[in-house]
Amino acid sequence: MNPAMPNAETALTDTVAAAFAQTPDPRLRQLMQSLVRHLHAFVADVEPTEAEWMAAIRFLTDTGQICDGAVRQEFILLSDTLGVSMLVDAINHRKPGQATESTVFGPFYMAGMPERAAGEDMAQTPGEPALVHGTVRDTEGRPLAGAVLDVWQTAANGMYSGQDLNQPHGNLRGRYRSGEDGSFAIRSILPVSYPIPGDGPVGRMMAATGRHIFRPAHLHFMIDAPGHQRLVTHLFNAGDPYLASDAVFGVKPSLVLQYSRQAADSAMGKHYGFESDFHEGRYDFVLPRA
Amino acid sequence: MNPAMPNAETALTDTVAAAFAQTPDPRLRQLMQSLVRHLHAFVADVEPTEAEWMAAIRFLTDTGQICDGAVRQEFILLSDTLGVSMLVDAINHRKPGQATESTVFGPFYMAGMPERAAGEDMAQTPGEPALVHGTVRDTEGRPLAGAVLDVWQTAANGMYSGQDLNQPHGNLRGRYRSGEDGSFAIRSILPVSYPIPGDGPVGRMMAATGRHIFRPAHLHFMIDAPGHQRLVTHLFNAGDPYLASDAVFGVKPSLVLQYSRQAADSAMGKHYGFESDFHEGRYDFVLPRA
Repeated sequence: MNPAMPNAETALTDTVAAAFAQTPDPRLRQLMQSLVRHLHAFVADVEPTEAEWMAAIRFLTDTGQICDGAVRQEFILLSDTLGVSMLVDAINHRKPGQATESTVFGPFYMAGMPERAAGEDMAQTPGEPALVHGTVRDTEGRPLAGAVLDVWQTAANGMYSGQDLNQPHGNLRGRYRSGEDGSFAIRSILPVSYPIPGDGPVGRMMAATGRHIFRPAHLHFMIDAPGHQRLVTHLFNAGDPYLASDAVFGVKPSLVLQYSRQAADSAMGKHYGFESDFHEGRYDFVLPRA
Repeated sequence: MNPAMPNAETALTDTVAAAFAQTPDPRLRQLMQSLVRHLHAFVADVEPTEAEWMAAIRFLTDTGQICDGAVRQEFILLSDTLGVSMLVDAINHRKPGQATESTVFGPFYMAGMPERAAGEDMAQTPGEPALVHGTVRDTEGRPLAGAVLDVWQTAANGMYSGQDLNQPHGNLRGRYRSGEDGSFAIRSILPVSYPIPGDGPVGRMMAATGRHIFRPAHLHFMIDAPGHQRLVTHLFNAGDPYLASDAVFGVKPSLVLQYSRQAADSAMGKHYGFESDFHEGRYDFVLPRA
């Protein structure tokens, strides 16, 4: 806030906030009045020229117009790249210390993907073979049987099935179920880092501000166990060059998974039917009670 | 800001602001870092649910999608109805006390409208006859000759020509020029109060928050005099029921014009060729040096 701001300008903010005082729904009233105060504080802080304000209007208009009602949602991407999605996620998923941390849902989830047996390969396109396995447990360490792990990741070309219409239906997607001992096993390919859509207003914003548009390689999870809180999270590949600069700020240290190299003719390799060496990652998910 | 906000959430804001630290253009860097801090402060303040945040994403998307690149600009309307346009206007037009105050430009200006002689009637559609006249002066009170007064207003149906395609070209628009003594005279019809577009996201926001969508009756001016600052302003009808609750917060007391009733057969009525009684308003504009 400019300390030399004329009284008429600070009074304007009060006038606009007061215009929302008759909002019937108290929560909407709170949201709108807080929005007015923060938005006006931003404008008072930076004192935009009229040309800058019009550039902002055009940017927001372009962001809305590139959305297609299906795959392309540029306002979610803007929220992601400004760190707002992660903040909303954090606020809504404050968990006890021992619980697995959440991260952003992202725009590429698809419901109704194939149910898969433990250890079934969900990759129908090539990549470096990988196995991710472990357990689902409650915060007291007890195994959670029958938890559904809805999993999705990009192909080696950096695109998701559904987004990339050349990929087979259900490629690199699937619903696994934990066993009586809480265990799960996902056979797939190693995730790769990939760029978020860069050909729209958000891409132009990232370029103009000297930011890259990559996300570090990750595997998405949405885990549901009866009587427990849903967990939406990723597991990120340790060593990925973009771990410290995720374009959407989704990385948390507790979600970084170290893969190790295993031989095809190891007991594990034979058990899961690998025909070449593979990357093994082990992770235990912990879900608080609902 | 929630005082109990976990450290990880406040740290996220710093991380996101730091991601913009390498923005090559220092002004863009300042704008983006301030945006991040204010936007995160808003989110931290209201702690939106995920459903609320998605509703905001949908609202912004709808606002972009209803824009048509021509007349309909819903983001300007949103900026107007949140009082941001008036704040940007105020910041960019801080003037010496004796100068005429500015107000919002609005989306309905059209360039290249007919040049009109002093006293020429710019109304080609019916309404209550009116005359607005006065002088254009500098801050020392000296008349400014040759100032161009670009003027526009709605017809009696509350719509502007260009917006309402049934109105003749140039209806209720025109460029007048001040005489050697700084005087000007605009013959027209009395402006009426009218609703802003209410059939889009902004209209839904106004309805949900219990606000009406009307603007008090006004006549728009953009005045240019060589060597002086451009003035964009309105003159509002005194007594309009919406003066204290303009949907876009554009009213300033100094811009309220009291019209008085004059007879057609008065000297003034005869001079300007009125065939019935009319409303006369007198106003002197004062422009600071550029």
